[in-house]
Amino acid sequence: MRLSRITELLGGSLAGEDREITGASTLEEATPSDISFFANRKYREAALRTRAGALVTSEPLDAPCSQIVTDNPYLYFARVLGLLHPEPQRPRGVSDRAYVHEDAFVHPEATVYPLAYVGPRARISKGCVIHPGCVVGEGVTVGEHTVLHPNVVVYPGCTVGAHCILHAGVVIGSDGFGFAFDGVRHVKVPQVGTVVVGDHVEIGSNCTIDRAALTATRIGSGVKMDNLVQVGHNVVIGDHTIIVAQTGIAGSARIGSYVVLGGQCGVAGHISVGDGVKAAARTGIASDVEPGRVVSGFPSMDHSRWLRVQAAYKDLPSLLKRVRDLERKVMERADD
Amino acid sequence: MRLSRITELLGGSLAGEDREITGASTLEEATPSDISFFANRKYREAALRTRAGALVTSEPLDAPCSQIVTDNPYLYFARVLGLLHPEPQRPRGVSDRAYVHEDAFVHPEATVYPLAYVGPRARISKGCVIHPGCVVGEGVTVGEHTVLHPNVVVYPGCTVGAHCILHAGVVIGSDGFGFAFDGVRHVKVPQVGTVVVGDHVEIGSNCTIDRAALTATRIGSGVKMDNLVQVGHNVVIGDHTIIVAQTGIAGSARIGSYVVLGGQCGVAGHISVGDGVKAAARTGIASDVEPGRVVSGFPSMDHSRWLRVQAAYKDLPSLLKRVRDLERKVMERADD
Amino acid sequence: MRLSRITELLGGSLAGEDREITGASTLEEATPSDISFFANRKYREAALRTRAGALVTSEPLDAPCSQIVTDNPYLYFARVLGLLHPEPQRPRGVSDRAYVHEDAFVHPEATVYPLAYVGPRARISKGCVIHPGCVVGEGVTVGEHTVLHPNVVVYPGCTVGAHCILHAGVVIGSDGFGFAFDGVRHVKVPQVGTVVVGDHVEIGSNCTIDRAALTATRIGSGVKMDNLVQVGHNVVIGDHTIIVAQTGIAGSARIGSYVVLGGQCGVAGHISVGDGVKAAARTGIASDVEPGRVVSGFPSMDHSRWLRVQAAYKDLPSLLKRVRDLERKVMERADD
Repeated sequence: MRLSRITELLGGSLAGEDREITGASTLEEATPSDISFFANRKYREAALRTRAGALVTSEPLDAPCSQIVTDNPYLYFARVLGLLHPEPQRPRGVSDRAYVHEDAFVHPEATVYPLAYVGPRARISKGCVIHPGCVVGEGVTVGEHTVLHPNVVVYPGCTVGAHCILHAGVVIGSDGFGFAFDGVRHVKVPQVGTVVVGDHVEIGSNCTIDRAALTATRIGSGVKMDNLVQVGHNVVIGDHTIIVAQTGIAGSARIGSYVVLGGQCGVAGHISVGDGVKAAARTGIASDVEPGRVVSGFPSMDHSRWLRVQAAYKDLPSLLKRVRDLERKVMERADD
Repeated sequence: MRLSRITELLGGSLAGEDREITGASTLEEATPSDISFFANRKYREAALRTRAGALVTSEPLDAPCSQIVTDNPYLYFARVLGLLHPEPQRPRGVSDRAYVHEDAFVHPEATVYPLAYVGPRARISKGCVIHPGCVVGEGVTVGEHTVLHPNVVVYPGCTVGAHCILHAGVVIGSDGFGFAFDGVRHVKVPQVGTVVVGDHVEIGSNCTIDRAALTATRIGSGVKMDNLVQVGHNVVIGDHTIIVAQTGIAGSARIGSYVVLGGQCGVAGHISVGDGVKAAARTGIASDVEPGRVVSGFPSMDHSRWLRVQAAYKDLPSLLKRVRDLERKVMERADD
Repeated sequence: MRLSRITELLGGSLAGEDREITGASTLEEATPSDISFFANRKYREAALRTRAGALVTSEPLDAPCSQIVTDNPYLYFARVLGLLHPEPQRPRGVSDRAYVHEDAFVHPEATVYPLAYVGPRARISKGCVIHPGCVVGEGVTVGEHTVLHPNVVVYPGCTVGAHCILHAGVVIGSDGFGFAFDGVRHVKVPQVGTVVVGDHVEIGSNCTIDRAALTATRIGSGVKMDNLVQVGHNVVIGDHTIIVAQTGIAGSARIGSYVVLGGQCGVAGHISVGDGVKAAARTGIASDVEPGRVVSGFPSMDHSRWLRVQAAYKDLPSLLKRVRDLERKVMERADD
């Protein structure tokens, strides 16, 4: 694809030779037939030395290659990748090696691969791709152009929106963790709610999202979830929130919109995390967090405070020594 | 179902009108045809305002609806849900789209769904449900009325008791993590033990339970495990223990009965956690814990101590300042 | 198998009677027909009391059984287990209940079980075993004698080396977590790289390893990974590194060779962990670590320092009291 074709489709201004590029790569590994991007000043030297044939950048560089100048090079580069790597063409229709219940509906322009299972009254919409090993339970609705990668399980009665991507091994709608103790045993509280996943949601491999006890666990539109995330029953997650790998959200927590939870965070049950909150990796949120706060640590506190607490924490042995010295001095003085 | 029919079946005393209810919901979302419950004083206001047609409660409330009075409203409500949502009727028998080895035994009153795999000499007991995508290995025994949700894997030789529920993606019996270093490589120690799961056990989605190196990893009866929990080889877990999501238990640890491990806890290998221990979320248990203790933190300590430690920890910057002030004062005094 | 046959095959010197053993077990549970091993002084008493018919040990013990004396008893015992438990014979060839694309290559001496899926242009080498429920994507190569346990998913274009063991539910090659914000939405950055797994790698159940954004996520040869580990896109892991359960490694981190990451560790993105580093369980590595260091805590620090910090941390309430006492004394003195 020629660079001029790219700017024609995506905007930006081309500086330097209009050449053909055939691939995309990192600054270090790019060859003259590749396009790369410069979005982080840390990599300026690498950008100046790159062998790439073209660079996407927010400022013209003194680099020996063609450049496309644009406001948000990373976003632009994401779109270039979309042009260079169009979605593969898929066979349309239902494989005769899949199992589709006679009462299920599969749109003629959807794909159901061999060894996928689609239960009674499930509804697979236009453009969906159901990979091998997926199990779409009774009465589930999957919206248009949603992709279920291999071995995804959607329990009965749940709903997945349009343009979603569910990666391999995701489980939607397993029972929430609810038991009532009878003095001897933990008696199961039937989990009769459901899960509703919005549109344009991406969920990473082997994530688990439990169905509600009574109403619905809700994942807002535009939410992006990394791998191995756990979402408890009755949790509500607002739109465009980002949740990094191995984070866990306990039952009935409410997470706002545009929140970012770093990797390995934990959120306690029944609490509320306001819109736009950012939590650093490994934050343990045990009580409500107001909108817009940046938090860290366990239990979580303002990130700026946490930085000071951590500095003191790492220096505890020297603080201990200082207190010991003071005690000696004060004691000696008392002896005078 | 009429309220009088419910009290006839489950006990409790009915106050107010005997009406028909058709569903169950939360205090906030219930409608006049729903039953709800009041078990947490925090929600008293919500209970007084509810539109529910009936409430399960431990004390008669001045609420505008019928009430069922009982000692343990949450437990009672769990049972009401069981009445309102009976287990769905399932097709009996083995789907001709399943793969069942000719040397396997499947009870005629069990269900094996399409695309499930049952290996040689496996034994599927009466009332079991084996969902699509499950893989029941060679020689596995699954007890009566146990449900394997989609894509559960039970490795060869393992045993699952009766009335268990294994949620989607659970793996039982993968190799324990054992290697002997030969100076260059980590040589695999063959894991020739097994896993024995008791009765009435529930295991959450995508949990992993490793087989023993030599003998058996044992999960006691009545154990309830949330999603994404990891259990190492040779671990022994006592009856009626509760393990919340994303907790990990390292090899050869022994966990007592009626223990509660909160979410994202870690238990070190070869240690012992006594009966009735409660560990708060994110506790890291690195040494033995005596029966009945309540612990928190990492390394774990008594919860009451942890609360004081955490209070001091969060205030470290001010402690640092106080020590600095003291040093200045003592220094000034010395200069006098 | 007679003990003399074992020493003939594996070396070591036999002391005591040359007897027949039929199994292997722990010191506590062994019977006279079992062999056991003594490698940890902590278990000396158990070794002296064992009912085992034979012991592998590094020093002759005053125990009432035959002994095989060797330098590394645990390694030796691992090999004995291999002799006593040879790999089961498997049916060769492709089950007619599997789905193998007509453009895939499966070596005639490989095994593909019922309900496995092998996509177009995939290559299954000699001696491979592909268990039920596995999904081997388009163009994937699986090296000789590699075993994919049930429900493993390898996304298109990835490569798995020879003699690897991938446990149930492992996902290789799901999309890395990359999004560019356009002011309203998180726009997906297509993940067009791949995953390359070396030889002799073992990966635990339900681990997730993301494909690179552009180039390749690389898992070195001899790497051993426990269950539920998360590896982000573009991560590079050196040879013979060990990663214990539930650890997460964020995108573009570089982990050296012969590293050991304990359970529930976290490694931040774009950092470098040097060869031979050892991180205790639950370490959070947020910046580069030099080769050979032993680290703990979050943020990580030298393990010896962490021990002192932790001791002080647990004693914070008493430190607080000491500072309060000092303040009172200094204040009183000032009043004199």
